[in-house]
Amino acid sequence: PAVSLSGRLFCHVSINDSGDRRRNIDHFGFLEDGTFKQRYLVNNEHWDQKGGPILFYTGNEGDITWFCNNTGFMWDVAEDLGAMLVFAEHRYYGESLPFGQDSYSDTKHLNYLTSEQALADFSVLIRELKRKVLGAQESPVIAIGGSYGGMLSAWLRMKYPNVVVGALAASAPIWQFPDMVPCGDFYKIVTQDFARSGLNCDSNIRRSWKAIDNITATDDGLQWLSGEFSLCSPLKKTDLDDFKAWLQETWVNLAMVDYPYEANFLQPLPRWPIQVVCKHLNFDPSSVSDYQLLGGISEAARVYYNYTGNCPCLNTSSTATGNLGFIGWYYQACTEMVMPLCTDGVQDMFEPQDWNFQAFSDECNSLFGVRPRADWAATVYGGLDIASHSNIIFSNGGLDPWSSGGVTRNISDSVVAIVIPDGAHHLDLRYNNEYDPHTVLSARIQEVEYFKLWITQARKLQIPG
Amino acid sequence: PAVSLSGRLFCHVSINDSGDRRRNIDHFGFLEDGTFKQRYLVNNEHWDQKGGPILFYTGNEGDITWFCNNTGFMWDVAEDLGAMLVFAEHRYYGESLPFGQDSYSDTKHLNYLTSEQALADFSVLIRELKRKVLGAQESPVIAIGGSYGGMLSAWLRMKYPNVVVGALAASAPIWQFPDMVPCGDFYKIVTQDFARSGLNCDSNIRRSWKAIDNITATDDGLQWLSGEFSLCSPLKKTDLDDFKAWLQETWVNLAMVDYPYEANFLQPLPRWPIQVVCKHLNFDPSSVSDYQLLGGISEAARVYYNYTGNCPCLNTSSTATGNLGFIGWYYQACTEMVMPLCTDGVQDMFEPQDWNFQAFSDECNSLFGVRPRADWAATVYGGLDIASHSNIIFSNGGLDPWSSGGVTRNISDSVVAIVIPDGAHHLDLRYNNEYDPHTVLSARIQEVEYFKLWITQARKLQIPG
Repeated sequence: PAVSLSGRLFCHVSINDSGDRRRNIDHFGFLEDGTFKQRYLVNNEHWDQKGGPILFYTGNEGDITWFCNNTGFMWDVAEDLGAMLVFAEHRYYGESLPFGQDSYSDTKHLNYLTSEQALADFSVLIRELKRKVLGAQESPVIAIGGSYGGMLSAWLRMKYPNVVVGALAASAPIWQFPDMVPCGDFYKIVTQDFARSGLNCDSNIRRSWKAIDNITATDDGLQWLSGEFSLCSPLKKTDLDDFKAWLQETWVNLAMVDYPYEANFLQPLPRWPIQVVCKHLNFDPSSVSDYQLLGGISEAARVYYNYTGNCPCLNTSSTATGNLGFIGWYYQACTEMVMPLCTDGVQDMFEPQDWNFQAFSDECNSLFGVRPRADWAATVYGGLDIASHSNIIFSNGGLDPWSSGGVTRNISDSVVAIVIPDGAHHLDLRYNNEYDPHTVLSARIQEVEYFKLWITQARKLQIPG
Repeated sequence: PAVSLSGRLFCHVSINDSGDRRRNIDHFGFLEDGTFKQRYLVNNEHWDQKGGPILFYTGNEGDITWFCNNTGFMWDVAEDLGAMLVFAEHRYYGESLPFGQDSYSDTKHLNYLTSEQALADFSVLIRELKRKVLGAQESPVIAIGGSYGGMLSAWLRMKYPNVVVGALAASAPIWQFPDMVPCGDFYKIVTQDFARSGLNCDSNIRRSWKAIDNITATDDGLQWLSGEFSLCSPLKKTDLDDFKAWLQETWVNLAMVDYPYEANFLQPLPRWPIQVVCKHLNFDPSSVSDYQLLGGISEAARVYYNYTGNCPCLNTSSTATGNLGFIGWYYQACTEMVMPLCTDGVQDMFEPQDWNFQAFSDECNSLFGVRPRADWAATVYGGLDIASHSNIIFSNGGLDPWSSGGVTRNISDSVVAIVIPDGAHHLDLRYNNEYDPHTVLSARIQEVEYFKLWITQARKLQIPG
């Protein structure tokens, strides 16, 4: 099908200022005294220069222009709020590389890739902007982010409430850490998304793993499967685990981006892509052969990988846009961002897999020479006990697997949850669309109401006496 | 005079548990994966093992047993609160040396001496104690500290409100940072303490600097001054700046420990030591010669250095107890703890001296190979803008020069200030004494009332639903 790539590319047409101010490579020690250029993008076309607010996107694990282009919400509300928009890139991603091309070269150079350093970067940048931009001295700043960026925006408010007056943490799984939520919820939600999107859809995927085993027992079967999936590199026996992991990640990604309209976030996709996927998987599982089943699976996978029709073969080495920094994120998972996930094959449609911290730790050690600290995130970011904070909105999509680790109930009057039943991964941060379900429209309205409340509160505090 | 050293030495008789659990040397990076033993002291003689609270002293720049022995308040209130007492040593001080004897060897080894690392140590220790001590799982923890330790207790509540339910920050100059308070206030308060403690006292000290210059213009004068002060090493011309700095620090220390009873904190001293000092400086400044004036000054200094009568000569290389870690603190001042102080000779009794950041930075660089980051403390700890926090008491003594950088007015209902007009440096943290002014007694009563309120709040939050 001919695809008009959706998403207005705001950041390439509307950025009227940008910069790459220098940050300390190490905010928490004084031996390493080097600095690096942090990239950020600014739009002030609607900004009320007399102290109008600043909406500050706390960049996550990727190129900031890509997040900028996928955060239409900020552009949609700028005029109403008289707000300046700032999109700040996260260190070690995009162009904000502390050691240039060497940033990923070894454990030593990776040492400053942590969320604490990133939060410090954001705080220093905000204070610098307020000091240097005429009219911004008294501007209340609101942190906004999605996914890991949403975790950062919540944590920025928690750790630096002097710097931001509030935070919108969209689809931010701040509780997806050891001993906080059941490790199986994530894949349960993925499975529910497929179950609700077409008859037999989850059952056929659940059956497919065994079918892959059956068929790839022979060399002929391996060859058939490679052809059926149009794989760029034919499968070898030893590739099977990777192949299954790639398929599993495909279904996860689809659950994350199951948006109600054509979009291009992780991949260019049709509206409600899981429904389109499930059309290829609606047969009665008991009535088809393994070959027929896997034929359907390959059609389904193609919805995700080849909606544009421009993809000559499927590459099992990646599942999503190159704008995300996978190695960096994996390093972060291997240090602070320890997020247990598991499957049981019963409540989810995947092969059973326990969460094995030791195995994960060993893998991290062999890959990066570091070992994850399982308990650190709970210590430094408060775990389940976040009631003493204020002015944070946690928004979650009911379709989003990451809502498993999200805050989905009000914690207090000012640490609140907004659930968008028909929403996938931070749908609320995307621009308004005619196909938006009313639940996301009302979520965005509530979010802006909270912003206005925080801005009013901040202005009151500024009145002397 | 025969001196009975005051201060019941609690920590040597009453500690029924202590430990040295291992901490990560670097909480904020994963390259350095070493650990070190952090010392802490525990008393649970009055602890209600069914979830009684924990009073947690956030150790500052010195040996923890010394702080333990000088924090009688915690021992005095333990029974009433059914509280466990914990005194945790700050890394790089006392016996808690991350690299043993090498900890101070160079910039590289000093790199992990920061307040952020210390706060992380405390948080990890508290979580560990709650996990491992039977009955402590639900114990509300209250942070208590004085001076830099008080800053740490306030910051612990600000940064880790999940770990402590509240904090008593006694004489904690959290605002003694660039652009927060006037740099001259500190020495103004010192001067006021002398002015109120005896006729002509501050005027004679103000005149003494010039008298020193006059007399030391000749070699005979230098020799006379060395003899008059019973200096261990005779003064040379080039020592004059150091000699004046030593005298200045002597007056500052006296202002800090101007307690209403005999005590031994920085030095063994009589009750109201500045009044005793001022008895030697009560003559009319215009009626005495430089020799007579400096004779009085030397008698005054001896009150501070030789109250025990056991001191054969005065040593100008140090001004206080060896329990404090001066090098470590100087390194901290040279990195994060940039506290501008200045004098003008008019509103204070010292020689005029501007605050010169560049000169300070150069000195730090030559001493430690680091340069201070003047703006960092304001960024990371909120500066003047701390209203969004909760459950912090800032207590300040009116006599204490450090109250210049303290929080001396209520910020909100739960970030409150208690001023003790007759109190010197964290007098409220000392044990009850018959000579205590009523203002400190009522401060301690208020503090305990807040503790009880926080404990009640915490218990309410624990009730499910």
